[in-house]
Amino acid sequence: MANLLILGAGMMGTALAQPIADAGHAVRLVGTWKDRELVAGLRADRVHAKMGTRIDDRVTVFDDTELDAALAGVDAIALGVSSAGIPWALEVLAPRLTSPLPIFMITKGLVFDAGTLRTLPEVVRAGLPAGVRERTFPAAIAGPCIAGELARKVETCVVLAGEDPATNEAIRALVAGPYYHVFPTTDVVGAEVCAALKNAFAMGIAFAEGQHQARGGAPGSVANHNVESAVFAQAVLEMRALARALGSPGDLAAGLAGVGDLDVTTNGGRTGRFGRLLGAGLTVPDAIAKMDGATLECLEILRVVEEAFEARAFGPALDRAACPLLSHLVEVALHDTPVALPFTRFFGPELRA
Amino acid sequence: MANLLILGAGMMGTALAQPIADAGHAVRLVGTWKDRELVAGLRADRVHAKMGTRIDDRVTVFDDTELDAALAGVDAIALGVSSAGIPWALEVLAPRLTSPLPIFMITKGLVFDAGTLRTLPEVVRAGLPAGVRERTFPAAIAGPCIAGELARKVETCVVLAGEDPATNEAIRALVAGPYYHVFPTTDVVGAEVCAALKNAFAMGIAFAEGQHQARGGAPGSVANHNVESAVFAQAVLEMRALARALGSPGDLAAGLAGVGDLDVTTNGGRTGRFGRLLGAGLTVPDAIAKMDGATLECLEILRVVEEAFEARAFGPALDRAACPLLSHLVEVALHDTPVALPFTRFFGPELRA
Repeated sequence: MANLLILGAGMMGTALAQPIADAGHAVRLVGTWKDRELVAGLRADRVHAKMGTRIDDRVTVFDDTELDAALAGVDAIALGVSSAGIPWALEVLAPRLTSPLPIFMITKGLVFDAGTLRTLPEVVRAGLPAGVRERTFPAAIAGPCIAGELARKVETCVVLAGEDPATNEAIRALVAGPYYHVFPTTDVVGAEVCAALKNAFAMGIAFAEGQHQARGGAPGSVANHNVESAVFAQAVLEMRALARALGSPGDLAAGLAGVGDLDVTTNGGRTGRFGRLLGAGLTVPDAIAKMDGATLECLEILRVVEEAFEARAFGPALDRAACPLLSHLVEVALHDTPVALPFTRFFGPELRA
Repeated sequence: MANLLILGAGMMGTALAQPIADAGHAVRLVGTWKDRELVAGLRADRVHAKMGTRIDDRVTVFDDTELDAALAGVDAIALGVSSAGIPWALEVLAPRLTSPLPIFMITKGLVFDAGTLRTLPEVVRAGLPAGVRERTFPAAIAGPCIAGELARKVETCVVLAGEDPATNEAIRALVAGPYYHVFPTTDVVGAEVCAALKNAFAMGIAFAEGQHQARGGAPGSVANHNVESAVFAQAVLEMRALARALGSPGDLAAGLAGVGDLDVTTNGGRTGRFGRLLGAGLTVPDAIAKMDGATLECLEILRVVEEAFEARAFGPALDRAACPLLSHLVEVALHDTPVALPFTRFFGPELRA
C-alpha cells in the first residue's frame, strides 16, 4: 500500500481518488484555498457537493492549511488543480519538496510564454526546486474521462504522458486498476496539445447540433450529423498537425487523447453545451451567461491559440490559413463572428497524411 | 450541363441526385428491379417514400426496364445500389458500355474472394467489358453522409477515392456544389476499408449507450461516455492498422472516411441503434427482430472480417489478437457472446504510431 496525495478537491481531483483507493492505496485528498467549502462538506458527510458522489473510506480529507501533515511520507503527488491553480500549487509545494517524487497532473493546458508554447509538465518541472527538478519528470493524464463517471467506477481509458518511461510506469502501477486503464506514452507534447485543444475543437463540433436545434429540428437520424462529423474529422487532422508542429513524434490525435477526448468533451462536457449555444446563434456574452459561471476552458485555450498564431509559435508553415477550423473558432469565440464553417477550406492535402 | 445516370433509387442514390441537380446537371435516376415501388411513388408525386423528400425537377425517373433509354448520351454513371446489388448492376451495365465513362459508386464494402480482400471499385472494374475496363477507373464515395440530410441540402463533406486523379477530378467537378464538398484521394484501399469497417466499429461504439440505458441511466453528462469514447479511439486505430495492412499508403482513418463516418454512423444510423440494443444485453436474434428488417451492414462486414482473419488476409502481423476490438465485435455479433469490452488489450504500442 502506498500513500498518494491529490492536491485539489474539485471534481476531477476527487474522482481520481476512487480508482487509486480501489487499487489498494491510501489517498490524501487536499483541497486548495478555493475548495474549503467542498472540503467541509466532504468532512461532514463524505459526499462531494458538486459531483454528488460519496468518497471512498480509504480517502482522508485535508484542507490547504494542513498540507504539511498531508505530505508526510507520501509516495506520489497528483495535481488536481485547474490550470489557473498551477502557480499556486507550485508555490505551496516547491518549498516542501526536498527529494524527487513521482508527480502527475490531471490539469491540462498549454501556456504561451515569451513567444513559446509550453506544456504544463514543463511548467511544473521548471517550478520545482533545484536538486529535485533534475530528477523529477512530471507526467500528465489525458484522454476521455468525465469525472462523475470515473467516481462512479465507469470503465475509463486514459493516456499517461511523461518524459521518463520509468516514472510513467511507477505512476501507472500506482493508479491503474480494474476499471481505470492507464496507457503510458513519452509523447508529452502530443498529449498536451490534444488535451488543451480538444476544448476548442469540441466547441466547434457542437455547433452542428446547436444549428439544428435553432432551426427547430428534433433529435434523430436526419439532423445535422453530416456537419458535426465533418467538423470532428477536420478537428482531428488540425490537432495532429499542430501537435506535430510543436514536436510531437507520435499520433495521439487519432487515439485516446484526440478522438477519444473530443468525443467525450462534445457529448458529455460543458464545452459541448457552450458550442451548441453558439451554434444556435447566441452571441458569446449571451452564451456565457447561460453557462452559470462554469469555467470555459475553450475560451482560455483559444486566447492562447490566438497569441500563438500571431507569434507564429506553431512554426512558419502552420499559420491560421493552414488551420481553417481553429481559426474560425478563434473568430467565433473571441470576436463574436457568426458561425459559418469554412468547409471548402477543410481537408487540404497538407492535412491528409 | 451534363447528363448523369444514377443506378439505384434507394435513399442514398436518390439523395445524391440533389447536389448534382443543384450543380446544374440533368440527373436520370434509374431504379433497380427491387425499386419498382419506389419508382412508381416518385413518378406519382415526386416524393421518395422511404426518405420523405421531394426530388428535384431536374431529376428524371426511370425503372430498370428503361435502362437503355436512360443510358443514351450519359456523361457519367453513379452506382447507388447496395453492395449486394453490385453483381446485378454489372450484369446489366457491362453489355451496354462500349466506351469509357467516369463511373463512381456510393456503395461501400469489401469482398472476400479466393483468399483476398478486394475493394468494390476493383470488383466493378473487373466486371467491365474488355476495351472499356482498361480506360476506366471506378471511384467510390466515402465519408459521413446521412442520405436524408444530403437530400435536404445539409452541408456534407465526402472523400472521393479512385485510382486515377484525372477521373477523380472529372467526377468531383460534376457532383460538387455549394453544400456538397468532395475531396478526392487516390487511396482507394484506405477509403474502402474505412467505409466498410465503420459499420462494424460503429456498432461497438454504440454498446456504451445501450449499457447505460439498460442500467436505467438517463442521458446527460454523467453516463457511459468514457466507455464510448475509448471504444471510438480504439476503432480508429484498428481501422488504420487494417487499412495499412491492406496497402493503404495514407491515413484516412483519422479523417473524413474514418473518424467522420464513425461519428455519423454511431449517432445517426441504424447501425448505432443495433449496437445500442446489443449493448443493452439483447441477444443477436432479439436485436435483429427489433430492427424491422433494416439491412445490417455491420453483420455483413463482420462475416467478411471473420473469413479474412481466418485466412490471414490482413497479413501475418495483423491477426485477431492485434485487433482486440474488432475480434470482440465478431464474437458478439456472429456468435452471440455477451458484450465485455477488452479494455486492457486496447491501445497496444503497435497501434499507437
